Amino acid sequence: MEKTYKVEGMTCGGCVQSVEKAINAVAPAATVKVDLENNHVTVTGIEDDNLVAQAVENAGFDYEGPVF
Amino acid sequence: MEKTYKVEGMTCGGCVQSVEKAINAVAPAATVKVDLENNHVTVTGIEDDNLVAQAVENAGFDYEGPVF
Repeated sequence: MEKTYKVEGMTCGGCVQSVEKAINAVAPAATVKVDLENNHVTVTGIEDDNLVAQAVENAGFDYEGPVF
Repeated sequence: MEKTYKVEGMTCGGCVQSVEKAINAVAPAATVKVDLENNHVTVTGIEDDNLVAQAVENAGFDYEGPVF
């Protein structure tokens, strides 16, 4: 299932890579796509929002929650 | 004790904040300073290099080791 989250604080390609790697560190099989312009992170393969939230926050970015 | 590490992959202020927060997540009392131009991260208050390495890698950046 694909799910999109609002994440603040990403401003460049380094930030994008940081968020991607942080999420893949807790869920190696997950697919992560970042839309820098809209501050959206789209994740496939993680059911638990808290896992995404924790990975994002630990990487130093602000997890705002799912986007509907 | 202050110690400086080489960290690759940081390109903007968002990256800097990411590395700082990631290190402070594992060591809340540590002081972290980032020199973006030289790819240096200076940490005060952590004795174990591996702790720094792990925090940096989990945040999606490349820990290269201590700078002497």
